[in-house]
Amino acid sequence: MKYEYMFTLSGVISHVCIQDEVPSIDTLIEDQNRRSLLVCDVNTERFACAVAGNTGAALCVLGAGEAAKNWASIETILRAARSAGLGRDGLLIGIGGGVISDMTAFAASVYMRGVAVALVSTTLLGMVDAAVGGKTGFDLFDIKNLVGTFYPASRVYMPVSSLASLPAREWKSGMAELIKTAILDTEDKNGEFLGLLASLGPTRTTEASDTLVECIARAVRIKGRIVEADPKETGAERIMLNLGHTFAHALESSVGLGQLSHGEAVAWGIARACDLGLALGITPSERAAAILALLRSFDYELAAPYPLGNITLFMNALSSDKKKKAGTLNFVVPSTVGTELVSGKRIEPALLARIVGVS
Amino acid sequence: MKYEYMFTLSGVISHVCIQDEVPSIDTLIEDQNRRSLLVCDVNTERFACAVAGNTGAALCVLGAGEAAKNWASIETILRAARSAGLGRDGLLIGIGGGVISDMTAFAASVYMRGVAVALVSTTLLGMVDAAVGGKTGFDLFDIKNLVGTFYPASRVYMPVSSLASLPAREWKSGMAELIKTAILDTEDKNGEFLGLLASLGPTRTTEASDTLVECIARAVRIKGRIVEADPKETGAERIMLNLGHTFAHALESSVGLGQLSHGEAVAWGIARACDLGLALGITPSERAAAILALLRSFDYELAAPYPLGNITLFMNALSSDKKKKAGTLNFVVPSTVGTELVSGKRIEPALLARIVGVS
Repeated sequence: MKYEYMFTLSGVISHVCIQDEVPSIDTLIEDQNRRSLLVCDVNTERFACAVAGNTGAALCVLGAGEAAKNWASIETILRAARSAGLGRDGLLIGIGGGVISDMTAFAASVYMRGVAVALVSTTLLGMVDAAVGGKTGFDLFDIKNLVGTFYPASRVYMPVSSLASLPAREWKSGMAELIKTAILDTEDKNGEFLGLLASLGPTRTTEASDTLVECIARAVRIKGRIVEADPKETGAERIMLNLGHTFAHALESSVGLGQLSHGEAVAWGIARACDLGLALGITPSERAAAILALLRSFDYELAAPYPLGNITLFMNALSSDKKKKAGTLNFVVPSTVGTELVSGKRIEPALLARIVGVS
Repeated sequence: MKYEYMFTLSGVISHVCIQDEVPSIDTLIEDQNRRSLLVCDVNTERFACAVAGNTGAALCVLGAGEAAKNWASIETILRAARSAGLGRDGLLIGIGGGVISDMTAFAASVYMRGVAVALVSTTLLGMVDAAVGGKTGFDLFDIKNLVGTFYPASRVYMPVSSLASLPAREWKSGMAELIKTAILDTEDKNGEFLGLLASLGPTRTTEASDTLVECIARAVRIKGRIVEADPKETGAERIMLNLGHTFAHALESSVGLGQLSHGEAVAWGIARACDLGLALGITPSERAAAILALLRSFDYELAAPYPLGNITLFMNALSSDKKKKAGTLNFVVPSTVGTELVSGKRIEPALLARIVGVS
């Protein structure tokens, strides 16, 4: 099974290919004489070696996880690119999950004022979220992606065979973004996509089922269309991808970056968005019930306040959200079909406090 | 006297205003409620204070010079932006010479994936080069601007009264870029611009003369048109701004970054470009003579090899130039009117060695 898409982001064409195996480096560099650098982490080094084959391609192996998403790692990539002799016609290839995608694409966006980047996304979260849409970045001062650019990858490969070895927690993390994307599909009038996800069942199989691959392809198509319409998040489209994320980012900050998987925080945030949408009369009760039931079936922690968190830290983090506009928080909540953006001005502080479990 | 220009770079409109005094912060932020951060160095803090007036605007003061053009300074700007509460609608304002312009605009290009930047250029080099054209960056691994982005400032102010206090060496540094820009003016068929520069005389006055301001305005207009035609240096136009720079960057690297002023290195590089153009039969001998005479009148060191340098380091730096294409160095040399790009393939190694003073 193979799905191919082509998106145009700020004039840059981005090819996305969902296939079984990792691509070879020859496919990625396109021209034998082109210098390239493979970037991976300790968990995805074996995929990078599979991509490289016996070509002796330059390889840069970073530490794994959110803790490594910092300037030191970016500098390591830049040093390796320099050592590998990359010029402006060079290519950086990121092989891994969201952290590797974000950092490799950031490094590419600033190395010599920009070289091309290709991504091989090996996690569910990376496939359905980080690898498509051109957002790059790293964490600074304990703030997620405080530093970043918009810089689309020219090619994105999603080798679904890599999902077989994905740890259960990573799997669950990606599933939350998949559920999020299904909720904001404005064409899914009958809730078919959510039903497809429910049919996957909470137990993952060692091989990616045809249904899962279909769900990934659908999420890629939905996200691709949204980011094409609004590549730099200046319009009304891209903000919808933020469903659950205003709550999730504050939760991740308040419990300490890297303590929760991103998806665990997003699932909790989607539950809060449902509560908020219900309270405001925007989310129909049947839709909220269906979403919450699906989240529960995947065993996400949905209680408010979140058992691990410190509520004061949480409220501080919430109030310093990076997507504030004119000093006001904005929330995305599920509507009858798709989602709706709600200005924080419409929300009483007491209501917000109840939603996040302060009172 | 006041000159105003408007350039469009990659869809972003950039206003340039050459005027007597620094603008007030109200003019810069446009909206009283907008959060901003003023960035300057220890030498330009007084200009930043003049911009801020008694508004209590947030201020970030960096170390001066090329030695401070590093990630630590960028992180300092980002931390100050965060402390000042800048969101995505915030504004960074760089007040200083080329180093401050490049770093402030870089920080703006990556803070929360991009906030607006305005520049107040207080040096001759900054006015005629760094502040126009959208190139940002900082040095890494001893390589100038190894890290950077293309990110045009929305507003650029050039308060010529600030030139009165410019140290002589800085003045001389800027004059070299002014001479460079005059050489590549394809509309200057009679050498009028070069003549205007010669008429300034090597002795600077404490006040910017009308002739100097006219020269600055002319250089801004020429550079603005070039970068509009080729905003990301992918075409044939922008590379011409590199006249003298392939040699200059290698010289700066080989003597140690910050040892020479950029302009001193550029003047030496232009002399080498004249030698090369003469040897290749591209630069008419009268034109080379006029350019070299003008450079000499400003007392630039033009001898090859450069008295300070280590020739082995120089040749290594030259061969790792960041603007190599397909492994080949390219040189810009003066032609009858304007300049011409010459591929390194046309140049015998022995000729190049002679030009830079190896043999």
